Amino acid sequence: MRPGVDETHDPALTSWVESANADGSDFPLQNLPFAVFRRAGSRQAWRGGVAIGDQVLDLAALQAAGVADGRAAEALALAAGETLNPLMAAGRGHWQALRQALSRLLRAGAVERARLEAALVPQAAAEFTLPAQIGDYTDFYTSVHHATNVGKLFRPDRPLLPNYKWVPIGYHGRTSSIVVSGTAIRRPWGQQMRPDAEQPELAPTRRLDFELELGLFVGPGNALGEPVPVGAAEDQVFGVCLLDDWSARDLQAWEYQPLGPFLAKNFATTISPWVVTLEALAPFRVGAARRPAGDPRPLPYLDSPAAAEVGAVDLQLSVELQTAAMRARGEAGATISRTSWRHAYWTMAQLVAHHSVNGCNLRPGDLLGTGTLSGPTPAEAGALIELSVGGKRPVGLPGGEQRAFLEDGDTVVLRGWCEAPGQRRIGLGECRGTVLPALR
Amino acid sequence: MRPGVDETHDPALTSWVESANADGSDFPLQNLPFAVFRRAGSRQAWRGGVAIGDQVLDLAALQAAGVADGRAAEALALAAGETLNPLMAAGRGHWQALRQALSRLLRAGAVERARLEAALVPQAAAEFTLPAQIGDYTDFYTSVHHATNVGKLFRPDRPLLPNYKWVPIGYHGRTSSIVVSGTAIRRPWGQQMRPDAEQPELAPTRRLDFELELGLFVGPGNALGEPVPVGAAEDQVFGVCLLDDWSARDLQAWEYQPLGPFLAKNFATTISPWVVTLEALAPFRVGAARRPAGDPRPLPYLDSPAAAEVGAVDLQLSVELQTAAMRARGEAGATISRTSWRHAYWTMAQLVAHHSVNGCNLRPGDLLGTGTLSGPTPAEAGALIELSVGGKRPVGLPGGEQRAFLEDGDTVVLRGWCEAPGQRRIGLGECRGTVLPALR
Repeated sequence: MRPGVDETHDPALTSWVESANADGSDFPLQNLPFAVFRRAGSRQAWRGGVAIGDQVLDLAALQAAGVADGRAAEALALAAGETLNPLMAAGRGHWQALRQALSRLLRAGAVERARLEAALVPQAAAEFTLPAQIGDYTDFYTSVHHATNVGKLFRPDRPLLPNYKWVPIGYHGRTSSIVVSGTAIRRPWGQQMRPDAEQPELAPTRRLDFELELGLFVGPGNALGEPVPVGAAEDQVFGVCLLDDWSARDLQAWEYQPLGPFLAKNFATTISPWVVTLEALAPFRVGAARRPAGDPRPLPYLDSPAAAEVGAVDLQLSVELQTAAMRARGEAGATISRTSWRHAYWTMAQLVAHHSVNGCNLRPGDLLGTGTLSGPTPAEAGALIELSVGGKRPVGLPGGEQRAFLEDGDTVVLRGWCEAPGQRRIGLGECRGTVLPALR
Repeated sequence: MRPGVDETHDPALTSWVESANADGSDFPLQNLPFAVFRRAGSRQAWRGGVAIGDQVLDLAALQAAGVADGRAAEALALAAGETLNPLMAAGRGHWQALRQALSRLLRAGAVERARLEAALVPQAAAEFTLPAQIGDYTDFYTSVHHATNVGKLFRPDRPLLPNYKWVPIGYHGRTSSIVVSGTAIRRPWGQQMRPDAEQPELAPTRRLDFELELGLFVGPGNALGEPVPVGAAEDQVFGVCLLDDWSARDLQAWEYQPLGPFLAKNFATTISPWVVTLEALAPFRVGAARRPAGDPRPLPYLDSPAAAEVGAVDLQLSVELQTAAMRARGEAGATISRTSWRHAYWTMAQLVAHHSVNGCNLRPGDLLGTGTLSGPTPAEAGALIELSVGGKRPVGLPGGEQRAFLEDGDTVVLRGWCEAPGQRRIGLGECRGTVLPALR
């Protein structure tokens, strides 16, 4: 069941929270993404919240106000606690009921306004934590452009491996080191084999990189041994966040054979606090990227007519880099990449169907990374290793600086948003991290 | 701090639980491994337990009896709940205090006997669950013999990759599908590229295998960004269990490049219920396997004099295979492999130091698999793919059967134990799984 476009998407709808009606807001009434937050510096329990303009609606306070009933009230109770796992487990019926209720309560003219105003917290006065307890984190490799670009650097003789166009390649990542946007990232040490060195050395990485990804939060999940059919796979996706899969390319090159990336990735993964639901993304669904002539048709367990028609999302993405020098000069970051999720070779339904085809069980709150979402042109690459062609052609920045890889003090900000004719723009907020020097 | 041999290891000590004194018991007074259990078929809350002979000592009941004090009482409270994570987090001081107390309480002549008898549950009347909530599961590749044997099959031209003798290779596994001994294993479906086929197909695996491993449960853990030095690494290891890393070799061969094994492994991993502590293993410590002349010395972050002297454990291991036909004839399983952990190329301290050198945080209850613990000779191989040389030389079984890979109805039982002159033998119990046919 794919969420459709309904009255909650009507671009004419406005909110009594005025900031939600401003042009360019990531969080108009048509979005309503979820996070877990509390008042910054307080000892409040963490609680669920919904973004509306520059405010967070405190769902614990909203629940106490008793303004919802039926399924919406049930869903609200599940969303009010210190993780969103219970809401994610509840399934699309509850998600839709809560969205409908929130849309009505926050709409201009809502009679409940007076009772809701006390439940608003300015986002600037809030601090955020991870939206869910993440049981398992899987990272995929859904951009054929990324796979080809990076493959050229690691394996010039065979950039794209024979399995790529058949198998939605993925691997398990580390959950303990997933952090929320704003957490500083310590440059990691690790084994490296430098060109022409006789033996490896332990040193701080010299090739620190970001990866522009999206993360999908799993909904109800499946029992061990019971695959999810591709036609039902989107019912397993609660929503989408931004994800920065920080990577140490020198560690990766030396360690990744034969069992895949390990220490090159597991020192940190940053996600945005806001999870934008599939309901909110409904108006921005588009057909899956067209496969070039000669590419194989997906095997039946990965194939569905719906995937071809509306399996993808035109979710636009950008990467901004601000160096310490730019910050000292009071300059904003420079945009160094622009792309869209729509270019992915594999859709979210295919990822879920593939992940579970062997009976592997997904649980509510599990996180599926898309892999770096590089688009078809060089300017759409989602990592410095691609943008700088393996470090050989550093990216130019304002003020004469350039970057082959990240330097200490650099801040990387990922952003995502959706726009379409006749629709209200919605955004994912930002996913931000600043590089700290390595420990001595 | 490596646990030493103390009075709790005295082979002359006996227990008032008579079955613990029987020759060949896995669980004499000198062992005292932990599990999480309840009376089978009951609705009791899961609770910590300690094995003694053929009984489980119920730690929730023991706590209520008020027979411990000081640090031991604190540790007991941490061990009595539905996971052992709190005990694992407490650290070696608490682990040792609880061991001392349990050893005294269960010793022949203990005055507390009458109060403890009511806290004993026959193991045959108990059911077990996972001993901890496992936040992350990492699987290593510590046997150079396994790496070489399997490498020959997957990459005949370069069996052992250049990084092997420098890097304790590891990758992240799936925690959701870790199950306790006795859980049936459903044969998974997956993509396979058969020899000479034009394209891959989706089918039940034809090359289902076990892997003989040990699992290490992590103790207190480290903060994100703060590596654990090799000299302190064993303080992070609470204890050891048996681990069967079920593997679908045809899925693995097709999917594993370039990001490592995924669906070939994540359909199920079985662990034994009992966790044998490093304290119990103290009398069986031996020097790490001698590296062949010409092998490099480990880099300093992986090198310690203690590792060379007593970094390994002479923990003996076996694999038993019972087919459906053998079971129908009332025959026990046949032992198809015998080896020891002592042959591993990397020690547990090296695994912990490597895993955290980039700042990756380990958390209490995390599980580190050793990888298949194949020994130096063909008979010591820990997986069918090695024993049958990639399926080409099936293993002979009693009654004229043979196995290249596992068939439906096969039961695999891993066992582990330690013996040394002048010491009481201790065991890990068993890790058991039976193969169910694939779903239609």
